[in-house]
Amino acid sequence: MTSAPAPGPTDPLVPVPDGSVSAPRGFTAGAAHAGLKADGALDVALLVSAASCATAGVFTKNALRAAPVIYDADLLSERPGRIRAVAMNARVANACTGPEGLAAARAMAEAAEQAAGLPPRTALVLSTGVIGVPLPTAQIAEGLRQAAGRLGPEGGSDAARAIMTTDTRPKHCAVRFETPSGWITVGGIAKGSGMIHPDMATLLAVLTTDAAGEPATLQPLLRRVADHTFNAISVDGDTSTNDTALLLANGASGADPARDGALWKVFEQAVEQVARSLALAIVADGEGASKLVEIQVVGAVSEAAAREVGRAIARSALVKTAIYGADPNWGRILAAAGAAGVALAVERLTLQAAGDGDWLTLAERGATAHPDPARARAVFQQKTIRLRIDLGLGRAEAVVWTCDLTPDYVRINADYTS
Amino acid sequence: MTSAPAPGPTDPLVPVPDGSVSAPRGFTAGAAHAGLKADGALDVALLVSAASCATAGVFTKNALRAAPVIYDADLLSERPGRIRAVAMNARVANACTGPEGLAAARAMAEAAEQAAGLPPRTALVLSTGVIGVPLPTAQIAEGLRQAAGRLGPEGGSDAARAIMTTDTRPKHCAVRFETPSGWITVGGIAKGSGMIHPDMATLLAVLTTDAAGEPATLQPLLRRVADHTFNAISVDGDTSTNDTALLLANGASGADPARDGALWKVFEQAVEQVARSLALAIVADGEGASKLVEIQVVGAVSEAAAREVGRAIARSALVKTAIYGADPNWGRILAAAGAAGVALAVERLTLQAAGDGDWLTLAERGATAHPDPARARAVFQQKTIRLRIDLGLGRAEAVVWTCDLTPDYVRINADYTS
Repeated sequence: MTSAPAPGPTDPLVPVPDGSVSAPRGFTAGAAHAGLKADGALDVALLVSAASCATAGVFTKNALRAAPVIYDADLLSERPGRIRAVAMNARVANACTGPEGLAAARAMAEAAEQAAGLPPRTALVLSTGVIGVPLPTAQIAEGLRQAAGRLGPEGGSDAARAIMTTDTRPKHCAVRFETPSGWITVGGIAKGSGMIHPDMATLLAVLTTDAAGEPATLQPLLRRVADHTFNAISVDGDTSTNDTALLLANGASGADPARDGALWKVFEQAVEQVARSLALAIVADGEGASKLVEIQVVGAVSEAAAREVGRAIARSALVKTAIYGADPNWGRILAAAGAAGVALAVERLTLQAAGDGDWLTLAERGATAHPDPARARAVFQQKTIRLRIDLGLGRAEAVVWTCDLTPDYVRINADYTS
Repeated sequence: MTSAPAPGPTDPLVPVPDGSVSAPRGFTAGAAHAGLKADGALDVALLVSAASCATAGVFTKNALRAAPVIYDADLLSERPGRIRAVAMNARVANACTGPEGLAAARAMAEAAEQAAGLPPRTALVLSTGVIGVPLPTAQIAEGLRQAAGRLGPEGGSDAARAIMTTDTRPKHCAVRFETPSGWITVGGIAKGSGMIHPDMATLLAVLTTDAAGEPATLQPLLRRVADHTFNAISVDGDTSTNDTALLLANGASGADPARDGALWKVFEQAVEQVARSLALAIVADGEGASKLVEIQVVGAVSEAAAREVGRAIARSALVKTAIYGADPNWGRILAAAGAAGVALAVERLTLQAAGDGDWLTLAERGATAHPDPARARAVFQQKTIRLRIDLGLGRAEAVVWTCDLTPDYVRINADYTS
């Protein structure tokens, strides 16, 4: 599981131990083995809310949207206040499957509604796995029936396990905070691993809350949060056909954070903290990854420019292999920044790196700062490496996370379908 | 060496056996070991023309241009008709080296001019290697003196060897064709290997010809040729600070292809054939590469859109690892196309693949064409794999080349500086 950071002295957010998507009141989850994974592991999951949820969703920008993405976007545009369930499966992405794929997504949603005793058009669907393979709807329907029989407030971690593909660890967490009307809880599960890049990835994330909410306010909140979390991570630069993040608010806490500006801010912090924990867990568990890399870009003329520079560094195979090799090859980092398509002034660039300790300046005014080689290498040998590049052009900034590129990434992906 | 393709029945271009940058009349080349490479291998090279050359150049689009790129672009804007020499070194890129780096590039050019007995401001410089390390100008000057003592019409292959970094094979070739005023020869050398991506890479290419020419007509010709060759290859998606392709025309053949439209066309074909041979040699010798992949994109609304789709496939780590693993995972290819940022209609997409033999249709109307799995795997097991994606939207097309992504790529790049 993914532990949320410990709260600071003034931090209103309290981590929920072993929390997940079923931590907020009124949500239950369950999972089953439907025969999709060869080893008998959980591969189908169901999340159910006792009441209708106001729901927001952000989806892949890939031009080839998978069938479940098309189905969900359509359902959310029609009934964003009436969602009761999310059905999920791993192993088959139901992408590039033609009109039959869309019919299969609908069949999966209907199977979930029947299994959970819900009205029609109340279940969303999420699929992840191999592209181009037909969804085995009968197997999945049977799996959803079994998952419905196991629904419970502790089921979220099983759901997180069921949606894993090449993930090595389930990803779930939850936080809560107090309001004058009682506690609000925000929970989530996610899966990632490969095909991870800004603008969503083979990234599925489901966030839940017992706060009251309206689709019209939750949607821009989820968009902002996704930009700072799920869209700020990159494993391999590939953007998937299935990426989806959902936020479901069922109001079971009786508290409505939208009634108070300060409370709304805390609510957004809570959603962002859960999303960031899940996003960082995804990147730390990137296929074959051995290191987590945080890239801070400051001094940019705009946040968009800062993010572009961060993304260019995050997707550079040469940067990521150097970090795997603990090689403080700062020239590759600047060269990757230079290839971002953003105007830069080389004589204003400063590059620093740090592990646990103090910042070490690697380059100043675009040229070497003559760092102590042993100290530079010691920084790059750590498990978490922070890079900070100051463009010297303005005051905007952005943070992007990535992992190293290892021989294991290649091995994992050289033979995935078979 | 790189062998040019055999001429067809009506092909006016004749390969020059073991040809290189010194095959055209009036060009000589030489190389030496200046102590930059640890193993005593050639690391400095000099190309000299007996007469002033009309010269064209295309340079990296990376915002951080290396000092030799800045120096050459400046010199070519000032004296594009007066170039006599190109000095080259491997192992140190002279990039991100500040004002001292620019002074070092100038010192290297002056050393070349002195070594070859040429007037000031007639030598261009090319550097490749590690970023951020000062250029050892005294060592390079001594190496250029030695190289000048070895200048000869057979020296081009040594020059090709001297500019190698992680290249495993030198890259050189030449072709010639007959004109009413005698034979014109076009030759070239190049190096590539890592940091290779459209819009130039750690790619250095020097093309020479004994045709007469003018900078004003050679420059657009080189731009067109580069777009179809050096800018159409990708190894790892990284764009370098040093990428440069030069075309020097010294007129020693006495033939001026610009006098006749048909002849100019053959001349451009000759330059393009040399450039394509070198570009394909670079991608086939990509760091750790075991396979060459040709990506044909057809049915696009514009050549730019076709090229973007081809590039997106060429830089997809998931496509490249699948090809390494001989895994006919066509869904990843369509997903990469979908992430190109180009509008696509999934129901119009057709994807085919071939090795030596016939095309095998993998996907039609954006979904599986149910190819025979054994035949699909047999195609992906070949050393050269052709992919053909028809977008079904228009008549424009483009070709892009890449290689597979292997564990060796990671190993090579995990520890390059030390």
